[in-house]
Amino acid sequence: MAATLTGVASTQEKLLRARAASVRLALLSTEEKNALLRAIADAIEANEKSILAANREDVDNSGLEGAMRDRLLLTSSRVKEMAGGVRDVASLPDPIGETLAEWTKSNGLRIRKVRVPLGVVGIIYESRPNVTVDTAVLALKTGNAIVLRGGKEAAQSNQRLVEIMKGEIMSAVPGVPDGAVELLDSSNRQSVNELIKARGLVDVIIPRGGAGLITFVTENSSVPVIETGAGNCHIFVDESADFEMADRIVINAKTQRPSVCNAAEKLLVHERIAAEYIPRIVKKLIDAGVEVRGDGKARTLAAGFHVGPAVEQDWYEEYLRLCMAVAVVANVDEAITHINRYSTKHSDSIVTRDEASARKFLRGVDSAAVYWNASTRFTDGAEFGFGAEMGISTQKLHCRGPFALAELTSSKYEIIGTGQVR
Amino acid sequence: MAATLTGVASTQEKLLRARAASVRLALLSTEEKNALLRAIADAIEANEKSILAANREDVDNSGLEGAMRDRLLLTSSRVKEMAGGVRDVASLPDPIGETLAEWTKSNGLRIRKVRVPLGVVGIIYESRPNVTVDTAVLALKTGNAIVLRGGKEAAQSNQRLVEIMKGEIMSAVPGVPDGAVELLDSSNRQSVNELIKARGLVDVIIPRGGAGLITFVTENSSVPVIETGAGNCHIFVDESADFEMADRIVINAKTQRPSVCNAAEKLLVHERIAAEYIPRIVKKLIDAGVEVRGDGKARTLAAGFHVGPAVEQDWYEEYLRLCMAVAVVANVDEAITHINRYSTKHSDSIVTRDEASARKFLRGVDSAAVYWNASTRFTDGAEFGFGAEMGISTQKLHCRGPFALAELTSSKYEIIGTGQVR
Repeated sequence: MAATLTGVASTQEKLLRARAASVRLALLSTEEKNALLRAIADAIEANEKSILAANREDVDNSGLEGAMRDRLLLTSSRVKEMAGGVRDVASLPDPIGETLAEWTKSNGLRIRKVRVPLGVVGIIYESRPNVTVDTAVLALKTGNAIVLRGGKEAAQSNQRLVEIMKGEIMSAVPGVPDGAVELLDSSNRQSVNELIKARGLVDVIIPRGGAGLITFVTENSSVPVIETGAGNCHIFVDESADFEMADRIVINAKTQRPSVCNAAEKLLVHERIAAEYIPRIVKKLIDAGVEVRGDGKARTLAAGFHVGPAVEQDWYEEYLRLCMAVAVVANVDEAITHINRYSTKHSDSIVTRDEASARKFLRGVDSAAVYWNASTRFTDGAEFGFGAEMGISTQKLHCRGPFALAELTSSKYEIIGTGQVR
Repeated sequence: MAATLTGVASTQEKLLRARAASVRLALLSTEEKNALLRAIADAIEANEKSILAANREDVDNSGLEGAMRDRLLLTSSRVKEMAGGVRDVASLPDPIGETLAEWTKSNGLRIRKVRVPLGVVGIIYESRPNVTVDTAVLALKTGNAIVLRGGKEAAQSNQRLVEIMKGEIMSAVPGVPDGAVELLDSSNRQSVNELIKARGLVDVIIPRGGAGLITFVTENSSVPVIETGAGNCHIFVDESADFEMADRIVINAKTQRPSVCNAAEKLLVHERIAAEYIPRIVKKLIDAGVEVRGDGKARTLAAGFHVGPAVEQDWYEEYLRLCMAVAVVANVDEAITHINRYSTKHSDSIVTRDEASARKFLRGVDSAAVYWNASTRFTDGAEFGFGAEMGISTQKLHCRGPFALAELTSSKYEIIGTGQVR
């Protein structure tokens, strides 16, 4: 039944349903929202069989293999993890209704700044079906309606998960319309185009995926956007670095999961230690299966190894695979300048024993997350302790870095008077 | 000299200069920024004669009269006020560097969320020359560079004011490039088009002005926007309202300054008191020179007065003049639904003695500022006690309502480890 509704309605009808649902969602109590989330978690577990069947269809139709197939694949334990994640969000504090500031003016007006839902959140994402549930429950917890536009590879999985959530929305909380969660048609680009032009119906669009999708959305959306994701992350090994720590951080940041946005792509080395450190780390990288590219100095210093030339485009590129470009810089200032010029303002790290260099780097690098003596791989909602994450913002407006519940809210001013006029 | 620089450079060159300046501005100490602001205030006072001469040219060239001429006009006392405003901003606390949150993870990573400048702020505005100085000093105080695109009527005034600010930027603080404040060509729309497409060079665009400008910018900008201004504000007079208070609030909100965004445009009256209250308030409005329009019920109840018909478009319109449309509603729920349907989400007020109605209205009306027993005219940075204002945001992302220093900032995460890897 819900399947029919989801399939038949136009994008515009779904957006109007979401808008209408958002009005009711904004008024739910914390208890009602948590009850809804727990009901969704139970329903996901109870419907494991049909979720896995729908996912099997997607996987078979996709023809994907390897890492791409793995991103799409659901298993019994992944369905259980999904439900567990929903219960985790249910147990987090509800930011809605929080008083952010409160004061009384000399004329007696009492002004209170209070946290409220954004309204309707739109998310455009790619193949992972767990994003469907993760983001929907973050939205519901904060009293927002959500409009999901997933990848076409995951169409059946997403459809089934949304049907299950809609069923609980309609039964667990009286009076909340099923428009609280809407799934758009993923068979073509048309629904994306309509979603990003729905100013007035949708309050924010969050694109999660490849650089092409994100650029398309940021350049064409008339709805405000939170840009996420692309990560051209750097490690700078300073003159005073502990080499063993540097090795550990470089290898971890590059190789532990090379396909994600917080993996390191570039290595900058202080010129005073370059002659010693570059051959050492290049050997370790190559031993770990990494293709290494270098600027002229790095290639000369690593002459005994196969290091290809890094061209200008390399310094901008997010490889997302086992490839790393290495450059020699004169000092921390040149490292900062290089990073601010080429990075995507995501995550960058300095390895140093010198606090002055570290402080300069932390302050001077204009990125969402700046590290001193740690791997860039920690830029993540769960690692930061947010319990869940909507994405990682690489813009400066509204929120920056990993974001979750608090960032799905806005504020309003409630002003109470006794007849004051100007 | 500065005049030549300002005049000759292309928009692109100015944006690159602003970007470069922003790097240096972000590193200034509070003392350096305050010294710069005080030097600007002194220079504005010392150059009063040339500012007034430039403004005289603008006023003479504009051919404007009445309120429009007054908006453009500078006088000796307005120049002094402008300088005083700059000193006020110098005396406000500096939000940059503030620790917004700080915690240590179980793996020993220390995470600190710290307030940082946005980078480069672009503002597109119309005729008032004081906006040039007000917004530039808010940006400088928060370590941002600013790119100004004022109205062509104020071209000479803005040019002179920017020259004065640039002179102090270059002399008062060693090493800050004059690109910290850039003025774009206002003779045609080209500079607006370039500014709103400068994603990567500009971090936020703030359009301040008429609905046409704001719509153009929000629909065409690829740079994140803070939408400001349009105000279709409502007063709802509830069943239990104190009529004298309601009169005072309605007349004040409508007539005290009808051309501004926080003036009331619409009056909703509870049907149980409509027969008594509508004729009473319509008479007072007409006596105050207000053109009154009404729905069918309101016109019938005010049959003894000249009340024109309000058509569908009236409920959406921001009149910005002495005109008000009146409607009868069944109860507070219908008032909320009406407002959420037609308002621009700016400022709306309920007049009532009933706390339950008031609480429902405060929670249910989806606007930046919602009032109980006070005039909508208080939605203003100075009235809220912010010392100054950049504008009034009517969107939900990043900030909502009057905004000033804190909203010209972003945040970053500084993470300190001891070699942690994942």
